[in-house]
Amino acid sequence: MGLFEVLNADSTTPARLGRLTTGHGAVETPVFMPVGTCGTVKGITPEQLQSTGASVMLANTYHLMLRPGVEVVERLGGLHAMSAWPGPILTDSGGYQVFSLNSLVRIDDEGVEFASHVDGSRVYLDAAAATGIQNRLGADIIMCFDQCTPFPAEPSLLETAVRRTLRWAEQCKQSHNRPEQMLFAIVQGGIDPDLRTRCASQLVEIGFDGYAIGGLSVGEGHQYMIDTVHHTTPLLPADRPRYLMGVGNPSDIIASVMAGIDMFDCVLPTRNGRNAYAFTADGPLRLRNSAHACDGGPIEADCDCYCCRTFSRGAIRHFFNVSEMLGPILLSLHNLRFYQRLMAAIRERLSAGRFAEWALGRLDEYLRLGM
Amino acid sequence: MGLFEVLNADSTTPARLGRLTTGHGAVETPVFMPVGTCGTVKGITPEQLQSTGASVMLANTYHLMLRPGVEVVERLGGLHAMSAWPGPILTDSGGYQVFSLNSLVRIDDEGVEFASHVDGSRVYLDAAAATGIQNRLGADIIMCFDQCTPFPAEPSLLETAVRRTLRWAEQCKQSHNRPEQMLFAIVQGGIDPDLRTRCASQLVEIGFDGYAIGGLSVGEGHQYMIDTVHHTTPLLPADRPRYLMGVGNPSDIIASVMAGIDMFDCVLPTRNGRNAYAFTADGPLRLRNSAHACDGGPIEADCDCYCCRTFSRGAIRHFFNVSEMLGPILLSLHNLRFYQRLMAAIRERLSAGRFAEWALGRLDEYLRLGM
Repeated sequence: MGLFEVLNADSTTPARLGRLTTGHGAVETPVFMPVGTCGTVKGITPEQLQSTGASVMLANTYHLMLRPGVEVVERLGGLHAMSAWPGPILTDSGGYQVFSLNSLVRIDDEGVEFASHVDGSRVYLDAAAATGIQNRLGADIIMCFDQCTPFPAEPSLLETAVRRTLRWAEQCKQSHNRPEQMLFAIVQGGIDPDLRTRCASQLVEIGFDGYAIGGLSVGEGHQYMIDTVHHTTPLLPADRPRYLMGVGNPSDIIASVMAGIDMFDCVLPTRNGRNAYAFTADGPLRLRNSAHACDGGPIEADCDCYCCRTFSRGAIRHFFNVSEMLGPILLSLHNLRFYQRLMAAIRERLSAGRFAEWALGRLDEYLRLGM
Repeated sequence: MGLFEVLNADSTTPARLGRLTTGHGAVETPVFMPVGTCGTVKGITPEQLQSTGASVMLANTYHLMLRPGVEVVERLGGLHAMSAWPGPILTDSGGYQVFSLNSLVRIDDEGVEFASHVDGSRVYLDAAAATGIQNRLGADIIMCFDQCTPFPAEPSLLETAVRRTLRWAEQCKQSHNRPEQMLFAIVQGGIDPDLRTRCASQLVEIGFDGYAIGGLSVGEGHQYMIDTVHHTTPLLPADRPRYLMGVGNPSDIIASVMAGIDMFDCVLPTRNGRNAYAFTADGPLRLRNSAHACDGGPIEADCDCYCCRTFSRGAIRHFFNVSEMLGPILLSLHNLRFYQRLMAAIRERLSAGRFAEWALGRLDEYLRLGM
């Protein structure tokens, strides 16, 4: 199961319009996937999430394996049933959390031992276990277990991480036992072009249903990130989806689509929404600001989301001011819709064959606006 | 504006089916009004609130006058516009909060001075101010400023509170200046029948659009509450709506309808929902309980709410266990729908003329179930 078609390749950039078909429906690419860490996008019902135009949801294996645990998810009918998300789901492998949540106890070429952030208990994870857990969670797209590196990182650490990521990717492919799930590999190598080349080409040699670029958006900044994406995407097969993990701002997304990326995930729309930060085409709004107290207009005049159709900036500012849950809920909804409208605009331009000029203009504008 | 009709009076109890017509639509009674303290029912969008079957929302004058303040609400187009609630709204007078939030600084026959729970600043409130603020907030039904007493209370305090409540009610009626808003008086007097009689009859003499029974559900227990309601409702005009403030459990509601009450408000469905407590016809469920961890069934099999149509008990238990906002949201939705289904069943029985036997059976059952 799992088919990717390029529907329209841009004539002047590596960008492309595509369609990824899964057992839970088709996904138009380039696509942005909201993050539902524990099986739910924070504060948002699946019904509301669909209303934002989201087609795929991401969930975190690390969090789900600790709570409620893979056995519980299975007994509740799998991740789709538990989450009540009818569309495709992607699970990450847990690698990123193990390496970023300061939980690492021991690592060697076989796997990692880490301390649970819930109760401190020791947990062991390796390629076979991460794959087995994802097989049992039942997402449509699952990810290879990889070693993530921080930025900056010593060359020796980057090299070791690439070596292990390749070894583990091979093991993941061998232990993967649910053919209806697509298995994606993850390219590591920091911002070192040679390591990225080596990692990408050896992963392609093993052969996967799709390829992700990991280890970016960890502090290297927009330009290093985009340079690395531009270097890496040509090394990946054109007929497989390309996924830039954990990215990012609207400017990061536009620049990465221009470099040939098809899939994105990021907590920014929901995390920023919970912190009273609204994305708009005219730049960010901070809704705790007293300037909005008596503003009867919506967050964005041309936005069709429930928040903008229903509530004034002044009302939303009030909800944040009195710590009402509705503030985070409404701005999460708006920001998720903002991202989906951005992706729809990208796809529309790609479909019409007039993408590059528009994208450059929007990229400049978003960089100028600091988003 | 504001018309109340009794559509069907029960033959064996004082219960009645009615309709209250306001500038924002009609309300079938007996009715339960969800509490939107700061202009929003916690965690629930107006769209979701409508889906539970709610027809009227309550908002708290005390909270709104402090934040965002009446000027801001006016500049945002009034309470309906700010809250985006298209149906009728009732505002309380602030009296209950002033007397219950330990904020009282000084009280005399003219009014009260209290310390804001937000910043400790001194605020003065009297009958004219409470009415003026409610005139400006713009709810469809507004309440007289009253003095609430705790339970138990000294007879002299109860007597003073009744005297002031009567004096202030007269002042509220005089200063009320928006005829499209209905003004309800509040009967005080604790559980003292003579004081209730005196307060009710003098309020009726002044004449109001509706009558509330206040100062109950403050610790006196189910039987004293119901006895006081039974004593008071015959003192009120049959052609005006009767509102029992801050009540209550399903058993309180059924017993009070049997005593002739038409309107209720209570934070229980939402507050309990946020605390993982679900109302069901078979008794309460506590969703943090590990017994629900692998339960694939809904909260209530025959419930038509979004929560029950969409999520398993196990999923909801997981959401509470990992502190996901979706847990409180889903149980608030279910509990609000549970209350609306209870009210719809009451109205259906009253309409069909076979209320009393059913109500007694449900009352016994809910008392037995501790709800």
